[in-house]
Amino acid sequence: MYDRIKGFRDFYPGEMAARRETIDTIEDTARQYGFREVGTPTLERAEMWTDKSGDDIVEELYAFEDQGGRHVTLTPELTPTVARMVVAKQQELSKPIKWVSTRPFWRYEQVQQGRQREFYQTNVDIFGSSEPEADAEVLAWAADALTNLGLTDDDFEFRVSHRDILGGVLETYEEDVDIDEAIRAVDKSNKLSTAEYHDLLVEAGLDYDQAAEFDDLIASGDLDELEAFAGTERVTDAVSNLQNVLDAAGDFGVREYCTISLETARGLDYYTGVVFECFDSTGEVSRSIFGGGRYDDLIEQFGGQPTPAVGVAPGHATLSLLCKRAGVWPEEEVTTDYYVLQVGDTRAEAARISRELRERGHIVETDVAGRSFGAQLDYADSVNTETVVIVGEQDLANDEVTIKDMESGDQTQVPVAEFPGDLDRPTYEDLA
Amino acid sequence: MYDRIKGFRDFYPGEMAARRETIDTIEDTARQYGFREVGTPTLERAEMWTDKSGDDIVEELYAFEDQGGRHVTLTPELTPTVARMVVAKQQELSKPIKWVSTRPFWRYEQVQQGRQREFYQTNVDIFGSSEPEADAEVLAWAADALTNLGLTDDDFEFRVSHRDILGGVLETYEEDVDIDEAIRAVDKSNKLSTAEYHDLLVEAGLDYDQAAEFDDLIASGDLDELEAFAGTERVTDAVSNLQNVLDAAGDFGVREYCTISLETARGLDYYTGVVFECFDSTGEVSRSIFGGGRYDDLIEQFGGQPTPAVGVAPGHATLSLLCKRAGVWPEEEVTTDYYVLQVGDTRAEAARISRELRERGHIVETDVAGRSFGAQLDYADSVNTETVVIVGEQDLANDEVTIKDMESGDQTQVPVAEFPGDLDRPTYEDLA
Repeated sequence: MYDRIKGFRDFYPGEMAARRETIDTIEDTARQYGFREVGTPTLERAEMWTDKSGDDIVEELYAFEDQGGRHVTLTPELTPTVARMVVAKQQELSKPIKWVSTRPFWRYEQVQQGRQREFYQTNVDIFGSSEPEADAEVLAWAADALTNLGLTDDDFEFRVSHRDILGGVLETYEEDVDIDEAIRAVDKSNKLSTAEYHDLLVEAGLDYDQAAEFDDLIASGDLDELEAFAGTERVTDAVSNLQNVLDAAGDFGVREYCTISLETARGLDYYTGVVFECFDSTGEVSRSIFGGGRYDDLIEQFGGQPTPAVGVAPGHATLSLLCKRAGVWPEEEVTTDYYVLQVGDTRAEAARISRELRERGHIVETDVAGRSFGAQLDYADSVNTETVVIVGEQDLANDEVTIKDMESGDQTQVPVAEFPGDLDRPTYEDLA
Repeated sequence: MYDRIKGFRDFYPGEMAARRETIDTIEDTARQYGFREVGTPTLERAEMWTDKSGDDIVEELYAFEDQGGRHVTLTPELTPTVARMVVAKQQELSKPIKWVSTRPFWRYEQVQQGRQREFYQTNVDIFGSSEPEADAEVLAWAADALTNLGLTDDDFEFRVSHRDILGGVLETYEEDVDIDEAIRAVDKSNKLSTAEYHDLLVEAGLDYDQAAEFDDLIASGDLDELEAFAGTERVTDAVSNLQNVLDAAGDFGVREYCTISLETARGLDYYTGVVFECFDSTGEVSRSIFGGGRYDDLIEQFGGQPTPAVGVAPGHATLSLLCKRAGVWPEEEVTTDYYVLQVGDTRAEAARISRELRERGHIVETDVAGRSFGAQLDYADSVNTETVVIVGEQDLANDEVTIKDMESGDQTQVPVAEFPGDLDRPTYEDLA
């Protein structure tokens, strides 16, 4: 009768179990790095995005007027929100500030594989350090999260670049180049033909010869050549910063995942320093899995004290495509430790056994629908039960219950007073 | 520069740590009962609420038209969404269907203590059983979740009622009584004066004598008297069903938390059978902590096969008020197992130690901001570090590191090759 809205997903238990396992791994890795969870609102003032126009993101907002006449929007990303939160408590927060959170975001985009209008990300950010170690820690967390999911250096690579190399080279042209627009052209370049790419660079203010020259320079990735070409402190500093970040990544054990790739630019205007994107090494997942980078000016733009910042936000939809491609996506199924099956009026005893097993932390179901022996056993099978505890009236008359292993079908009887007994997780194997 | 929207909260790490601990306890309890996590969309068709008008909820919707011209709303509750999901896969899902999820919802209400416009709930529902055991299992889960949070029967009570007792008594009046409206009056009665309450009952179709009589009958809570007064099968069946649910709650070990209270009605129209609300036993938190009940008709109304259902949804804001009142709310602070402090150029060794400690699952921070010894120690203190590992150039020249206990201030030196060594969680105590 009612249909789901296009671009919004329902996650049923099997798929959700796989997603939860993945999210837990990613968040546990962040926790081990000392990133602290924050909780953030779904709605913000739309002006947080519309004041600074230009990004595609503005056209994709789920914005509306609330009942109080506020111009609000479902948040399309987290970065402006955490920047606002840092500004609000700048004096009290001890630095560096290291935050993590997992939640949905919303953009009115074309729906396609790996891209819904409601999408989930885990955001990780460090505020208050301009040192290369902060950029490298963000890279290290991302790499550890992926390897903890079972991925290896055969599966993914981080393509690392620096906004000031791109911007510094662009500003050496005498013409009035719109640098943000040119960088957005670089960001889109791998989806465009060379002619289309050069057209965008020309729209941004270069002439065609310069566009071709710039394209060659960036594509070469030769940092020495870029430094020499620009001959400015800005580019020299940026090259040095990029190399320092990669050196720190080396100490942190994740240099092997990083490749210099100056064509990686990131679409958002607020990035200022090192930027990077994660790609499937096999190319089978053709789009960027996720990205991040340094955004040193945003806090000040939001009215705070100048505060350097760097962050990354793995999106769970593209990440699941990578994990599936690599064969490390968890089984999409629920599991159950015990099903306590009732035959006749044995509810009280079944409840006692269920309660004791749950107190040990196990997943335990019992009948709440008045179903037959066969129907209960089918249900137990459908939720992948390991052990069925059959509590029958006749067995109970003999002070016994039956323990059935669902994989083998083997079963044995044990004294009811001894189940679950002293074992933490008694199975057929333990009791037979 | 940008402000937070009224009724929307930012949760900083200390408060978020306490909330996360609470949510984990509640969800773990649900998992042990075999409730399976589902993921659900933030937006739904607004018609899912507006088609069935009457509830206050309709006036509080964050509804708007999306870029595709759809009339959508931020969901004010989960029940219609899970009902839609059950209808969409009714054939495939094995029953009973037992689902859980924790997420925010939105209502444009007056903001007050314990009530924001964005609020979090953990929803637990069972579909496909009309048996009293299903209602009782929902009560048992709720009680277990609360006692696992550290609450006791001195802290909370479940006031249990039955919609068919209220509706069955109301339909015995000859007049054309709007039963939904009268039940909404009962739901509001404890916030109203007697006169105001009776006015609402009169608006629903009773006369003033009948309103007073009905009020007395319901307030008495005398089930025998109610059965005799109504003299209908509907009321007799409802009384019997309520008693069966309480009997099952007895077997499930949670009868002691339940009180019969027919003035508990729940505001939403879709409830059909047993309904209940959780209250602070001391009355210090004056409003209902959360509520739930049976809604057997909703799936069919949504176009599905007739499917009985029962659920409950603890809200985290009111729950935190109860936990704080009872003194069981977790400490609002972050914790850190190790801070690896660098003195001089010891980044590589500090990174090695950090990595090995993280691999054992610990929360480990190290300097990423190029800070002084004192600044690092202050930071380690601010994040409640248990053990500081000082990696100094001079110590390293002697192949040693210093292990400092942050509570006592005691410290000792150990060979760097032996740290972290074979201990899972080496502390000053272990090494001194």
